[in-house]
Amino acid sequence: MNDAAHNEGIRKVRVDKVTNAGVEQRDDALAVEEPLEIRLAHWKDGELRELSLSITMRTPGHDEELAAGFLLGEGIVTGAADIVKIEALPASGGKPSNTVRVEVVRELLVDPERLLRHFYATSSCGICGKASLEALATQGCPVLPKGRPKLARAAVHGLVEQLRGTQSVFEQTGGLHAAALFDSEGKLLALREDVGRHNALDKLVGARMLQSDVKLRPPLNDCAVLVSGRASFELVQKALMAGVPVLAAVGAPSSLAVETAREFGMTLLGFVRDGRFNVYAGGERIE
Amino acid sequence: MNDAAHNEGIRKVRVDKVTNAGVEQRDDALAVEEPLEIRLAHWKDGELRELSLSITMRTPGHDEELAAGFLLGEGIVTGAADIVKIEALPASGGKPSNTVRVEVVRELLVDPERLLRHFYATSSCGICGKASLEALATQGCPVLPKGRPKLARAAVHGLVEQLRGTQSVFEQTGGLHAAALFDSEGKLLALREDVGRHNALDKLVGARMLQSDVKLRPPLNDCAVLVSGRASFELVQKALMAGVPVLAAVGAPSSLAVETAREFGMTLLGFVRDGRFNVYAGGERIE
Repeated sequence: MNDAAHNEGIRKVRVDKVTNAGVEQRDDALAVEEPLEIRLAHWKDGELRELSLSITMRTPGHDEELAAGFLLGEGIVTGAADIVKIEALPASGGKPSNTVRVEVVRELLVDPERLLRHFYATSSCGICGKASLEALATQGCPVLPKGRPKLARAAVHGLVEQLRGTQSVFEQTGGLHAAALFDSEGKLLALREDVGRHNALDKLVGARMLQSDVKLRPPLNDCAVLVSGRASFELVQKALMAGVPVLAAVGAPSSLAVETAREFGMTLLGFVRDGRFNVYAGGERIE
Repeated sequence: MNDAAHNEGIRKVRVDKVTNAGVEQRDDALAVEEPLEIRLAHWKDGELRELSLSITMRTPGHDEELAAGFLLGEGIVTGAADIVKIEALPASGGKPSNTVRVEVVRELLVDPERLLRHFYATSSCGICGKASLEALATQGCPVLPKGRPKLARAAVHGLVEQLRGTQSVFEQTGGLHAAALFDSEGKLLALREDVGRHNALDKLVGARMLQSDVKLRPPLNDCAVLVSGRASFELVQKALMAGVPVLAAVGAPSSLAVETAREFGMTLLGFVRDGRFNVYAGGERIE
């Protein structure tokens, strides 16, 4: 995290610290939480139309990456080549605009309600985890490489140490989730932090996507992602849409996270800490 | 948590447990995550209309309470008296329906898009934390009692112990968030667990609301709520809409959580653990 983003991400407040010994006034560093609106500009019937796609509570910084990663995760774009430009709208009247506008290429057919509609269509025969998996499949998620990459056990043990060593804002505030990208040797490539765990992952994927020379999907097929908290369905879904074959979590996975990973051939590791971890799916990638 | 809900909330899977000593196959208990659709039946122009209000990923169990708490938090109902009935739709074809339908009284004017519209209206001058606070104020959140209830420091220290002693599913899965209700003496009144922290709080508030003889708001004005994780804006917002004057979190609060608590006169405590805590707002309620 660079210094600018670093400062944006923290706010100091005066608090009373209460212990058995008494009360002390002290400065405390808080993780900043502010709404971000993601606006999508797309072409329909020869016109450039703009719609508000999402408002998410996030920690300011890396907003363009967040928007790019979010669009990829939702299946609205499949890579940087689908995007003409991403711009943070300027602040006005002393207030942050907290709005990012993404313009996509003319050729891109955008139907933001597709996912939602599909969900409802499926729900007529009962909303369940299975329906969530079907929705994900029709979203056109990429097929993960079989049995690749291979990660050595020792490399997995080393992930958390690197995450903690780099996750600077967390140490000050205790209030941020992190998502970190590693190569197949277990070397840290990038880290993003946010009050929302899904935002941290969107930022990480978006960063890779915007840097990438590969114009289709972000080239995450040979990478692993570590998240600081628990692994929910939403995180597995986002990792899958970005083509990440290995997702590791410091905390526990949910039932639907495990079912999704097994269904789509993703390696899912949980409780990665203190020199141990559990393999919930895709054990063939662990040596 | 009763036994039925308890079993619903856990699923066993076979995993590889990897340590430096080697690999062992073991059963592992996962927190169940499944989608829940909340449908709202309301009257408009003399007709009973039904709409899909929300799909949330939650841990099955206490679904009616979740729906009730969600509606209160969104400002759609103000208490149990606004609700005619809440029913979980029956499963069909072996699939869970995972749908709860809430029918509100004929007199209740429902405009589910109000909140969203307000947000957009405000956003024309810049989306920011301030806009979020304004949206909350126009939602008609209750005014909290000034300086009441009083909580002794010792009572605050005791909250976490009671939470951990009662939070049974967490111990097995490590995957659930908890929200617990306490009286002003620090005595545990109720506990709810969920993969989503906002769902755990909705269930807790909904439980109180549905039990209540008081027909307007749930009588949480003399209570404190403890949440197992961090305190985000969303949790402060939900506590505020339920009239909870004291919100305590085992983890860190966000900047917007603190701003919201200060704006609306709520007591917000963070890092409540190991015999210490920080007072971020409303210190006058702590003795």
